[in-house]
Amino acid sequence: MKKNSKVIKVALVQQGCANNREKNLAKSIAEIKSAAKTGAQLVVLQELHSNLYFCQSEITENFDLAETIPGPLTDKLATVAKENKIVIVGSVFEKRAAGIYHNTAVVLDSDGSLAGCYRKMHIPDDPGYYEKYYFTPGDNKFEPINTTIGKLGVMICWDQWYPEAARCMALNGADILIYPTAIGWDPEDDEAEKQRQLDSWQIIQRSHAIANNLPLICCNRTGHEADISEQSNGIDFWGNSFMAGPQGEILAQAAGNKSQTLMSEIDLERTESVRRIWPFFRDRRIDAYGVLTKRFGK
Amino acid sequence: MKKNSKVIKVALVQQGCANNREKNLAKSIAEIKSAAKTGAQLVVLQELHSNLYFCQSEITENFDLAETIPGPLTDKLATVAKENKIVIVGSVFEKRAAGIYHNTAVVLDSDGSLAGCYRKMHIPDDPGYYEKYYFTPGDNKFEPINTTIGKLGVMICWDQWYPEAARCMALNGADILIYPTAIGWDPEDDEAEKQRQLDSWQIIQRSHAIANNLPLICCNRTGHEADISEQSNGIDFWGNSFMAGPQGEILAQAAGNKSQTLMSEIDLERTESVRRIWPFFRDRRIDAYGVLTKRFGK
Repeated sequence: MKKNSKVIKVALVQQGCANNREKNLAKSIAEIKSAAKTGAQLVVLQELHSNLYFCQSEITENFDLAETIPGPLTDKLATVAKENKIVIVGSVFEKRAAGIYHNTAVVLDSDGSLAGCYRKMHIPDDPGYYEKYYFTPGDNKFEPINTTIGKLGVMICWDQWYPEAARCMALNGADILIYPTAIGWDPEDDEAEKQRQLDSWQIIQRSHAIANNLPLICCNRTGHEADISEQSNGIDFWGNSFMAGPQGEILAQAAGNKSQTLMSEIDLERTESVRRIWPFFRDRRIDAYGVLTKRFGK
Repeated sequence: MKKNSKVIKVALVQQGCANNREKNLAKSIAEIKSAAKTGAQLVVLQELHSNLYFCQSEITENFDLAETIPGPLTDKLATVAKENKIVIVGSVFEKRAAGIYHNTAVVLDSDGSLAGCYRKMHIPDDPGYYEKYYFTPGDNKFEPINTTIGKLGVMICWDQWYPEAARCMALNGADILIYPTAIGWDPEDDEAEKQRQLDSWQIIQRSHAIANNLPLICCNRTGHEADISEQSNGIDFWGNSFMAGPQGEILAQAAGNKSQTLMSEIDLERTESVRRIWPFFRDRRIDAYGVLTKRFGK
């Protein structure tokens, strides 16, 4: 067994958001600074952390919330990253061009440089989550983003349901899987359905850690947000952000219903020792996976 | 929400094996008959249920255990299937030709006909599980096997660690995922490592149910089996066979350390209603999954 270790200290900021961009961002930044003070080298924010989750309804004016990359939000995060010598994974509603908007994760390295960005590849659309209206699907290729602490396999929310996405990131060399997220319950669902959904969500992500022998960080939004169109009862974002090790084991777990900054140590070298006892990558049947790049077998 | 349902009653036979082929098989058959009497329409046996797990060491004479398909074992299972009007998923150490042996799952339909077979695609090899010595990798294409009760996505043990395999089966139309299995602990591992391994194993399989919105049956071996080569301390097969629904929820769960026949009802129509609320198949990025058919990205 390999005796080396490369332990990093990581944090995630699970927060409830208000209809006040400056306040939301100030809260995130305060938490980043606090995490950095206790030694965190990487901090992950939730999906679209600066705003309320505006995709509950389709409103043309919401495109005014979008900004460029680089732009005001990445400039601000870059300053925080540099001043606190910490790698930040943030989330931007990106205006790439008139008519091309993305749901984009940005990575600021600890020197304040923009290490890279990832445009959400799998775009959901179901009642209360009208993302196909707002977000053009990403055209990146599940490439991890290089930083001073490792190669970050950053994806976003709905991507977390796709084993293909995590596997592509792993095959492209990711050291860790990271999912900024905004998911919650329909308040009308019964408790049994809510529990099944929450369990499914955590299990599918733990399975990506297991299948790829990679640590994983998932940062989710928390708190109730009303549907201003009044078509629905809004969303109860379910929090429960967590970090898992390369056997899918839970390293740290946040509560469901409160803002919380979660910290843990992650040993990036454990991936290699786990891959030695469970060598899944050795035995992949790449000759027989052709249907994976098709819509359906028939 | 769709109001139809197609409920089937299923059983799995988790058993400890002795060094006595006739006795092992008699026990399996008694359990199949008993399950059929209580209304089971499908029964799943564990991997290599007729024998001790002989892959703990590499012994040339062990190839004498192999047999053809059809052959004595499938003939016997066919008779049981027909007499009890039940679909059986069994497991055969198959002699396909001199020098070509497979670890093969067989499906007998309820009229006694051989509905199909699946030759294990992913072959493990690590201390105590020398399967690459015995088993030629399968050359099938993750095609489900058609039966009177549905299309069975039968795979075997090590396949269960590969999200690709489950996805291929789902894309090829499987109604249910089924894994005959033989997995256990190294008695020398500490309790924390044992728990991580057991949890990982159940989570990765529940994730296949979730990702594909399919029910799943996993039938594992139980009991300690010595390593006759005395290179190791043998294997404690960990039982814990289970059935899950299409949100990954546990429907039934066997104990770890005893022979047990587990039964549950499974509603095959629930797949469609779950796929309507979480439409993962709609949004797969088949344009971006190319690396999945490569060994590694670099």
